[in-house]
Amino acid sequence: MEKNVIVDIDVHQAPATRDVLLPFLPKTWHSEWKMMGVLPPHYYSAIGGFRKDAKPESGVHGSDVELMRKQLLDENGIDYAILTSDAINISLYYNPDYANAVASAYNEWTAACWLKQDSRFKGSILINNSDIPAAIKEIERWGDHPDMVQIVMPSASRTLYGQRIFHPLYETAEKYGLPIAIHPTAEGRGTAPEPTNAGYPTRYMEWHAGLSVSYISHLISLVCEGVFEKFPGFKFIGMEGGISWLPNVMWTLDNHYKALRSTVPWLRKYPSEYIIEQFFVTTQPLEEPEKKEYFATILEMIHAEQTLLYSSDYPHWDFDAPKTVELCLPRHLRKAVMGETALKLYGLKRPTGKEAPTT
Amino acid sequence: MEKNVIVDIDVHQAPATRDVLLPFLPKTWHSEWKMMGVLPPHYYSAIGGFRKDAKPESGVHGSDVELMRKQLLDENGIDYAILTSDAINISLYYNPDYANAVASAYNEWTAACWLKQDSRFKGSILINNSDIPAAIKEIERWGDHPDMVQIVMPSASRTLYGQRIFHPLYETAEKYGLPIAIHPTAEGRGTAPEPTNAGYPTRYMEWHAGLSVSYISHLISLVCEGVFEKFPGFKFIGMEGGISWLPNVMWTLDNHYKALRSTVPWLRKYPSEYIIEQFFVTTQPLEEPEKKEYFATILEMIHAEQTLLYSSDYPHWDFDAPKTVELCLPRHLRKAVMGETALKLYGLKRPTGKEAPTT
Repeated sequence: MEKNVIVDIDVHQAPATRDVLLPFLPKTWHSEWKMMGVLPPHYYSAIGGFRKDAKPESGVHGSDVELMRKQLLDENGIDYAILTSDAINISLYYNPDYANAVASAYNEWTAACWLKQDSRFKGSILINNSDIPAAIKEIERWGDHPDMVQIVMPSASRTLYGQRIFHPLYETAEKYGLPIAIHPTAEGRGTAPEPTNAGYPTRYMEWHAGLSVSYISHLISLVCEGVFEKFPGFKFIGMEGGISWLPNVMWTLDNHYKALRSTVPWLRKYPSEYIIEQFFVTTQPLEEPEKKEYFATILEMIHAEQTLLYSSDYPHWDFDAPKTVELCLPRHLRKAVMGETALKLYGLKRPTGKEAPTT
Repeated sequence: MEKNVIVDIDVHQAPATRDVLLPFLPKTWHSEWKMMGVLPPHYYSAIGGFRKDAKPESGVHGSDVELMRKQLLDENGIDYAILTSDAINISLYYNPDYANAVASAYNEWTAACWLKQDSRFKGSILINNSDIPAAIKEIERWGDHPDMVQIVMPSASRTLYGQRIFHPLYETAEKYGLPIAIHPTAEGRGTAPEPTNAGYPTRYMEWHAGLSVSYISHLISLVCEGVFEKFPGFKFIGMEGGISWLPNVMWTLDNHYKALRSTVPWLRKYPSEYIIEQFFVTTQPLEEPEKKEYFATILEMIHAEQTLLYSSDYPHWDFDAPKTVELCLPRHLRKAVMGETALKLYGLKRPTGKEAPTT
């Protein structure tokens, strides 16, 4: 197999204990942090949340730099791993002041204890989007940091992500050239509405199998509210929500646009064109259709050569190694999906010894 | 073209005025009915809700038996049209006693003023599912009526349709051999939760393009809660929610089943097997992918020869004539989709002169 660039855009680093974060957190929040941390899980997963072999001596998965370096980067030949943290749900915490402080502390801890340890680690700016001006300040604080390459938010939200309250956030992200990624978490927890528009599902399997509903709703909102037209340099990533729901959204929106474009007069292209150019999905979890050729067709339908990014979700139970994913992909898509699209998207330096593909 | 059986499973009949319903409604509700009717629309549609040419002199689309007979049945060679009414949202009305009375009145009016007018008209039993014992009584009242062939409920619900509160309803439906169809309406209206798990979308286009989220959530719930296993003769129809989201649900559930089957121990088959055997979708609205062959592939992925039913949505703006739909379908699927699957599902008499396909 050729040596492809491999960029893993979804890796969860975690503090080994809550105490680890204290040096980065204002004293006024120490007691609440020690008692509450981030929001607890809402559904019990019968298979746990983590790869069993990714548990370090400290006991917390994703907390040991050395183990992650060895088990994720070295063993899998990963050129860059973008850290997304275990605190993405902080936007749904009840008290925005606490959430702002925890997000800042995570960013400082990540910069100090991870990004300095290995140049292959890159960071995501964790924000609390329940306080937009504070979230903007946090982006401005880190926006010029050479190793902070994306912004993360939860898939759960009280408000659809296309709506105007979020536009200043997108303006700031565009200014710094930082994509915003949403990651599954917190539907029905903290201040988030119920996980479906018909209440709470019964169990983990239902919540997890239905993650697409958040992504579908947010993407429709982003397109129709004109976010991609208003901020043409802005990129949005739907992490870990699957990919095979995307053709439905592209076609349905295009179809509706034909009949109802007077209600979205700011759109100057078909919805699917904005999606292909400014929206991304990730490989983890990979769908496994009944017939193998269906998977290739879905990749064609979503223009995967432009829209699909490799992610491992390390150290979670549904981790996908780069080799597994590469072998599932048609040969002509491997370079783009495994790393080339991400190199461009995040403005990462090409790793030495890995040539640009000749096209 | 061969003469296929054509069964249209989604046709909206409506009273010409509210007064039309009064003879069927207990007097105690007359004043509320005249003032309130059913729940009003929540989003303004810039293109209206109806085919402009389907407006009778009375002014209310779908209210004139003669016009519907001519414009829908005769002009399109439709063998059976299953009436679904303009009152499906009644389950989300605040007062369940009112909703029960209105549902009953609609059923009596439909039987008296539509089903007796033309043997091609068939009826749906309208129920108020906010009062399950009353809904069961309503099904029992009509279950043996030869022309009442399905049950209708709204896609909006306070509770996911797989959950146990609904199981007695499904037991009754199974006993009478009646499929239950859900139809888009009422997300965010009346007692229904907000239309998405992140609040209200901004406009009609967004709500309408995102109808799939209700269907995805309900279907996952129906499968995981074991409804199809518990009631093997029971059939559920997701009307007017599109079809291209279905492969995602089938594959994602199958994948999750491999890892998490201990949490759904009652399932004895893969989720997709239950879906293919007991769940149905409809042709209206038909997706229009970028490439024509994608549509054929989606039909293959969803096992359309078993799961897809023709519907026109007459007299709504997005009406699809049988000929339009037939021409979009691969030849080998036309008989099944246009009518043969529905004939079996609803136990309808084969129309004279239209032979059973030889297979």
